[in-house]
Amino acid sequence: MPDDFERMWGDLAPVGRSASSGGYFRQPFASAERELAQWFVEQCAARGLRVETDEIGNAVGWWDVGSGPAVLTGSHLDSVLDGGAYDGPLGVVSALAAIDLMRARGVVPTRPVGVSVFVEEEGSRFGLACLGSRLASGALSWEAARELRDRDGVALGDVVPGAASSLLSSVGTFVELHVEQGRDLVDRGAAIGVASEIWPHGRYRFDFAGAANHAGTTRMEDRQDPMLTYAMTALAANKQARLAGQRATFGRVAVTPNGTNAVPSAVTAWLDARCSTDAGLAELVDAIGRQGSERADRDGTSLTVTAESVSGAVTFDPALAAAVAADHEGGAWPIIPTQAGHDAGILSAAGIPTAMLFVRNPTGVSHSPAEHAEVADCLVGVSALADTLDRLTR
Amino acid sequence: MPDDFERMWGDLAPVGRSASSGGYFRQPFASAERELAQWFVEQCAARGLRVETDEIGNAVGWWDVGSGPAVLTGSHLDSVLDGGAYDGPLGVVSALAAIDLMRARGVVPTRPVGVSVFVEEEGSRFGLACLGSRLASGALSWEAARELRDRDGVALGDVVPGAASSLLSSVGTFVELHVEQGRDLVDRGAAIGVASEIWPHGRYRFDFAGAANHAGTTRMEDRQDPMLTYAMTALAANKQARLAGQRATFGRVAVTPNGTNAVPSAVTAWLDARCSTDAGLAELVDAIGRQGSERADRDGTSLTVTAESVSGAVTFDPALAAAVAADHEGGAWPIIPTQAGHDAGILSAAGIPTAMLFVRNPTGVSHSPAEHAEVADCLVGVSALADTLDRLTR
Repeated sequence: MPDDFERMWGDLAPVGRSASSGGYFRQPFASAERELAQWFVEQCAARGLRVETDEIGNAVGWWDVGSGPAVLTGSHLDSVLDGGAYDGPLGVVSALAAIDLMRARGVVPTRPVGVSVFVEEEGSRFGLACLGSRLASGALSWEAARELRDRDGVALGDVVPGAASSLLSSVGTFVELHVEQGRDLVDRGAAIGVASEIWPHGRYRFDFAGAANHAGTTRMEDRQDPMLTYAMTALAANKQARLAGQRATFGRVAVTPNGTNAVPSAVTAWLDARCSTDAGLAELVDAIGRQGSERADRDGTSLTVTAESVSGAVTFDPALAAAVAADHEGGAWPIIPTQAGHDAGILSAAGIPTAMLFVRNPTGVSHSPAEHAEVADCLVGVSALADTLDRLTR
Repeated sequence: MPDDFERMWGDLAPVGRSASSGGYFRQPFASAERELAQWFVEQCAARGLRVETDEIGNAVGWWDVGSGPAVLTGSHLDSVLDGGAYDGPLGVVSALAAIDLMRARGVVPTRPVGVSVFVEEEGSRFGLACLGSRLASGALSWEAARELRDRDGVALGDVVPGAASSLLSSVGTFVELHVEQGRDLVDRGAAIGVASEIWPHGRYRFDFAGAANHAGTTRMEDRQDPMLTYAMTALAANKQARLAGQRATFGRVAVTPNGTNAVPSAVTAWLDARCSTDAGLAELVDAIGRQGSERADRDGTSLTVTAESVSGAVTFDPALAAAVAADHEGGAWPIIPTQAGHDAGILSAAGIPTAMLFVRNPTGVSHSPAEHAEVADCLVGVSALADTLDRLTR
């Protein structure tokens, strides 16, 4: 019943959407994201899926069928600030639609199937990506997580009661369907791909400290302006990553006091860095920090670099990827790497055999209101996910 | 009664002070600044000064004595974000203390004397410095001002009813006492100086537009990242100003969407620029804009520069400055230029003969929690202002 996909997609379209940019603001535990969570519960109920939640707010809708280790599939409903419609919701809606399709085809799995929604995958509120899956899988302790704070100073521990979770206790395999965030599938002329690996990546807080002063009366040579140190560091990060075929981005900045006529006392900026190897990532961040510190010496400022989260290389189960990708009508699905982190990477690192399906993205644009996938490709994705769940539950 | 200065100074010390930085947050029409405005009314009442206000919130406490054109003295009570204690309040407190001192000395002016407080001198809320004096003097129309908006989108017209004002109708001379914001008086070994001129200066909004995208999956060569264009422009501004002995500062930045894992779609930054000549200022801003646009071409981004306010050169009445500075015990006070804008500059440009007194600042630091003046120098300032008012009202 492919119709169901489009109806569900239409349900979600207006929720948390900015009228000015057309982008989405679905930060965790805030109204838009909570509306989506409630929508998910209703969709599960409409399908007779038993909803199980944990303290942190992750949810699974269980199709209680068969026995043995369950196959879990799903994604997330939160977004980056001003994000696109597909990153996250496509995997949840496709999972529900895939169950509809399996049932329409008369498939009866021999194992339980679950549809999952993990909270705070983007880290847009508490700064740590894949927060829900890290806590549910035990990769992160509640003691470490409870003190994470959002931009208003609210602690995670003030928002949710704890992180107790048994959602993953019966899970034998995890499958996440996701819109592709690059153009590899376009280049290969394929609607569907399978993930081979996730590049190592991390978030690093760069604190530049200087001395506040009057922007008009302070001679240029008397200043200790951290904005200059930051500016040079941002350019250096770009150059380093370009030369090495890696990725480095300063997309978030906070200036103190942020007044037009004051030399700032401090600039804090966050580096997002990604490399094909763990060693390359460490070298990249070191090189950027070193160039920033050298400039700080010249500016009379200081730089402190703090790793807020670092995710090592994830190689998805190669036998599982090969089994998911092979022997399809029209040929095998391509197996490609990604530079983006996902809950699938956390669960894979926690020892759960995991696969990812990607749906073609015509422009490769993501984390943007312009993020897009064609409906026809999304419906191919639903069918591919149904096929995959069928294979894994025979 | 020099005691009065210190008592008043003590009254103001805690109002709007940040416990963490020690700096002041006294934005116009918000609680701390309104508390100071109320304090001013009470201080006027205690001295028998008749308080007159206008629609925008400027206030004068009148000592109704003598006849003819009045002599007005005062400053402002608002601060930059995280500013110092002296910039503004020193001139108001010194004016009240100077009246006390004149009365204690038995001086009876032949003309009315007023103590003024102009609102939003720093432009920290509505972005336009000297807002109150511009409106009171007719330099800015209410039609242009009412649509100015603060960072939350609130319009000035929603905060105050209008800008009708007759505060300046009887004023023949204006004198503003202010903490120095540089170190010229330290270099000259003088506690008091007189202003010769204010450098031309302006605020310019730089809007850098690019394309939002995923920070991990977007190849460096596929990006249109406005952060890079901004960073290069900030460094170029510094270099241009350094080479020319001028001033250029990017102290305020707003990033959209400001997420760690998203290439920004837009960066807006504000340039504060100051030069010794009007032509030099125009050249400086042009050169910075040109370098930014050239970089934008390479980055696939765009740059739009909008002048939010530009103040031409102000030369204070030379005869008045000479008369104020000359023939003091211990020698004449030095006459020095300043790079900072002041209400005194607006009133001077509006045709009111105007003088400024500066009080020595041991470090030159201003617009910072570290801004300071020694009590002994402040008391010399009170006496110097009383002497000046006495001279001007004989």
